[in-house]
Amino acid sequence: MAKLPRAIERLVEQFERLPGIGPKSAQRLVFYLLRTPEAQLEEFANRLIALKRDTVLCAYCHNVSETDPCQICQDERRDTTKLLVVETPLDLLSVERSEKYDGLYHVLHGAISPLNNIGPEQLYLNDLLKRLDRVDELILATNATMEGESTALYIAELIKESLPDNQLKITRIGHGLPIGADIEYADGVTIARALEGRRGV
Amino acid sequence: MAKLPRAIERLVEQFERLPGIGPKSAQRLVFYLLRTPEAQLEEFANRLIALKRDTVLCAYCHNVSETDPCQICQDERRDTTKLLVVETPLDLLSVERSEKYDGLYHVLHGAISPLNNIGPEQLYLNDLLKRLDRVDELILATNATMEGESTALYIAELIKESLPDNQLKITRIGHGLPIGADIEYADGVTIARALEGRRGV
Repeated sequence: MAKLPRAIERLVEQFERLPGIGPKSAQRLVFYLLRTPEAQLEEFANRLIALKRDTVLCAYCHNVSETDPCQICQDERRDTTKLLVVETPLDLLSVERSEKYDGLYHVLHGAISPLNNIGPEQLYLNDLLKRLDRVDELILATNATMEGESTALYIAELIKESLPDNQLKITRIGHGLPIGADIEYADGVTIARALEGRRGV
Repeated sequence: MAKLPRAIERLVEQFERLPGIGPKSAQRLVFYLLRTPEAQLEEFANRLIALKRDTVLCAYCHNVSETDPCQICQDERRDTTKLLVVETPLDLLSVERSEKYDGLYHVLHGAISPLNNIGPEQLYLNDLLKRLDRVDELILATNATMEGESTALYIAELIKESLPDNQLKITRIGHGLPIGADIEYADGVTIARALEGRRGV
């Protein structure tokens, strides 16, 4: 029986490893690439190799960056008394896009998730504790998911235990109805959180 | 405002070019790759470069292959009086998997599709005409789509015009209910084709 050339099979394997890409999509991608010019495949390959070579994790906030320390940690206009904790670099970018935050960040690179074998030791939590000396407010902006909530709780507990004398103010980012949302279609948990977080007008 | 490192943005661009991958999925894939070991990224890159270097199109059937002529065209046990036309190498593999066909193939690498700017001249049709000398039966196994149907019709007309003296038998692969399918859920066009293609029991 006829088989696919090994060069094709091997590239299909690589695509199959990526999240959300099954065997059929991997095959479709490879046959698409087979029709692209060789120069473009080389560029793709070069950029894959450059990915880790040209990026570092900032030693302070652990954001992915071209420089260490990263642009934000280097920026003297930033308010160093505020620290905002996010799960991923993409979360950090979202907060930056709001243009409403001028403090520093701390990227955990994940959230506690026993189902996925991610425990507190896999996150940059010890490094977080070391940064709290001159910080007045720690804002926990992990996701509004089971994992994000338990990570936020875990961090709050960890700080109370590890630094009992610390006068740090620990806050959680606000939850409620997203702007533009219809109350009619909001789920019960979001409504409950929105009621808890109600404010005087 | 903080930005993604250029190495990340550039790789995101590469993934965005692939069919079915939007900006958000491209970003997710790149951040996934950022957590994989550097050796694995290099392997991915090498296999991308090897894709075109280690594959050729068979000069006879235009299937992707490691050798030219391909394994099938080289195989002396194959019945050279039958030629089966498919749109893509994956279609050829499907027919091979059935283990019910022992003739040769011709891969068009597409189907006529005016909406996608694919005309007859983009397909390997002239090469097909040149191969018909010693062929008794030409089986048109293009897809059961608008594009596949019009390509099959086009080929049949082309042969009648270009080779008016040819005694070639031209057939279309059978259409009807797929095995395991419920008549209840079949669409009208499939039922109509299944009725047209009914056979004595």
